[in-house]
Amino acid sequence: MTNSCVRDLYCPKCEKRYPSGEPHQLCTCGAPLLVAYDLKRAANTLSKSSLTSRAPTLWRYSELLPVQNPANQISFGEGMTPILPMNRMGEDIGIDQLLMKDEGLIPGGSFKSRGAAVGVSMAHELGIEEIAMPTNGNAGAAWAMYAARAGIKTHIVMPVDAPIVTRKEAYICGADLHLVNGLISDAGKIVGRAVKKYDWFDVSTLKEPYRIEGKKTMGYEIAEQLNWQVPDVILYPTGGGVGIIGIYKALKEFQEMGLLDPSKMPRLVAVQAEECAPIVTAFQKGESESEFWPESKTAAFGINVPKAIGDFLVLDAIYETNGTAIAIDDPTLLAEQRMIAETEGTFICPEGAATFAAARQLRHEGWIERHEQVLCLNTGMGIKYPETVDPDVPTLQPEDDL
Amino acid sequence: MTNSCVRDLYCPKCEKRYPSGEPHQLCTCGAPLLVAYDLKRAANTLSKSSLTSRAPTLWRYSELLPVQNPANQISFGEGMTPILPMNRMGEDIGIDQLLMKDEGLIPGGSFKSRGAAVGVSMAHELGIEEIAMPTNGNAGAAWAMYAARAGIKTHIVMPVDAPIVTRKEAYICGADLHLVNGLISDAGKIVGRAVKKYDWFDVSTLKEPYRIEGKKTMGYEIAEQLNWQVPDVILYPTGGGVGIIGIYKALKEFQEMGLLDPSKMPRLVAVQAEECAPIVTAFQKGESESEFWPESKTAAFGINVPKAIGDFLVLDAIYETNGTAIAIDDPTLLAEQRMIAETEGTFICPEGAATFAAARQLRHEGWIERHEQVLCLNTGMGIKYPETVDPDVPTLQPEDDL
Repeated sequence: MTNSCVRDLYCPKCEKRYPSGEPHQLCTCGAPLLVAYDLKRAANTLSKSSLTSRAPTLWRYSELLPVQNPANQISFGEGMTPILPMNRMGEDIGIDQLLMKDEGLIPGGSFKSRGAAVGVSMAHELGIEEIAMPTNGNAGAAWAMYAARAGIKTHIVMPVDAPIVTRKEAYICGADLHLVNGLISDAGKIVGRAVKKYDWFDVSTLKEPYRIEGKKTMGYEIAEQLNWQVPDVILYPTGGGVGIIGIYKALKEFQEMGLLDPSKMPRLVAVQAEECAPIVTAFQKGESESEFWPESKTAAFGINVPKAIGDFLVLDAIYETNGTAIAIDDPTLLAEQRMIAETEGTFICPEGAATFAAARQLRHEGWIERHEQVLCLNTGMGIKYPETVDPDVPTLQPEDDL
Repeated sequence: MTNSCVRDLYCPKCEKRYPSGEPHQLCTCGAPLLVAYDLKRAANTLSKSSLTSRAPTLWRYSELLPVQNPANQISFGEGMTPILPMNRMGEDIGIDQLLMKDEGLIPGGSFKSRGAAVGVSMAHELGIEEIAMPTNGNAGAAWAMYAARAGIKTHIVMPVDAPIVTRKEAYICGADLHLVNGLISDAGKIVGRAVKKYDWFDVSTLKEPYRIEGKKTMGYEIAEQLNWQVPDVILYPTGGGVGIIGIYKALKEFQEMGLLDPSKMPRLVAVQAEECAPIVTAFQKGESESEFWPESKTAAFGINVPKAIGDFLVLDAIYETNGTAIAIDDPTLLAEQRMIAETEGTFICPEGAATFAAARQLRHEGWIERHEQVLCLNTGMGIKYPETVDPDVPTLQPEDDL
């Protein structure tokens, strides 16, 4: 057995509680369920010193993960992605300590693998044999990978416009893959009908409680890798919002366990695309939920989510941390992507590039100050979006000279 | 200063020695130079116990790397890639302990980053400002990334048929990129003329001594991750051959330092493509060098190298370890790639898949026995070769049902 200190599940909206150890989807009130731990017990074994000798994967935080039997951990070695100083970009933007946590350095090249690792492991532990999900691409690819390793059958529906690479990843891993001539919201409706018809387990964003448990490990790692300090600001590209919700949950858990100073929480920034900015609009109006964003589109395909089921949790995390929400247009984020590659050597995804554009704008507005430590979350590799780069290069004959 | 124990450089052919701390290319006799260390001194600080608390990157082996000043380490967090059990594949092939070291989990998604990390760091330390190289794609992409971070200008020539993704990576990182209507050998000739003309530093495979020092860290990691044992067999996809030469060098260094049992060396297997198999042919004839392979071609583009400058070192490593060399045809390695994805959930590159096909064949022939521990080196992510997967998937309308 692992040393998991999972206690039970709870609804953050109506506070109803559910036992762990059995399959759950949404709360009866329609809200996503979250996982609660016995944090006092967890603190007995998960300490700053005990962590130093643990393997560099997200499973190092096993007390705060739901998996009970190590044999059910489906793993490709995910986690402990590097935090890189981005000094040239920081100088250009006017931020003395600009950092990037690089989630490109994870199996499949996208942060979605964290959610898939824990989500699939739990599905495996609970004896689930068939899962279904809508996806903007990367999550489907990641869940297909982990499910293949677990021997679980995966049904995936993704927009025809989703990145082609993710289609190929899901396909080669043996997923039952369908495209839809529409958005992720359309894919979600098709999956919603199918899971009822076939009795598949629905692993849509936040419709099962464990994806977020995988993603929250980004928060644990940030704290540990920055030597038990937190940055002043964390910028996160926000579609479904599980990353930002997860980081917020993780930091609060570490605070409660005495691993982090409870008086300092980073200001969390949700970064969206200008043509898909439901969270930004809700934030600007001071609302607690977002409205469906019609005809959304962006080159940062992973954040093309017109209405997130966890929107109220994202907005809560922003309000509680004195954070903000900001939208970036496509030409700006693509220009930033290129500048980051040229100056820092990292080819990051458009979603990640949007966080740098956001940091630049927030610094310009004075919301971020020069001396603050700012961490941008890059959620994936640039090579998953080859269409964002169109090289114009000469072709030589063997006898030609440079 | 780092605790580098570099002593000097030596020619493995004519034994001439060169001082470290200044730029070197080939030996005057035309052979590649290798780096020698004071292994006794290194063993004082690099021990099994001292390693446990070091960061999970290849820089943990700094005693056995040439970089003198930590400020010159150009890093994206490369190294300590996972070793995964491949139980379903092992069962299918008939090998009880089949392992894969997954070099997809590295910046840029290819093992080439190891060579680039140490090669570019050394170029930076030596004050080199402009480098040039021919490449089959991944090495060029990796060197472009690291060089961008170091502020070094990179000139790259790659075949028009090299994977498109690598072209985009090199381009977005600001490399001066040219394609050639030919093979890497043609690209090499163009670069050879250019470096003379413009006085650029030539970082072609083994023409500078430090790329191999980065790649050898795979060998250190295998030893450390397998708890200071070595596998019975290591299979490596072999083009330029630096990986296999590096692993052999690393294991010998660890043996000499007392970290590994000197009586057991893994049998090293060079895996090539059937239509580009110069090392295999040379091995079968018992030769010490290979001959140029005309009109070579393979879907495993990274090993499309018709004549490797370090061929004699590869062959030496094979002979010395009672290893072998084997060629796999394209349909076989592509079928293996798909089976690995479906059964294990890992979408690996065609070169990596070739090593599993080779393990299967060698097991069938009895050269590998069931009880032996066998490690396949996957040199990169499958998504760098999207053209190897061609999904045939249905497109739905939003009102359609599954």
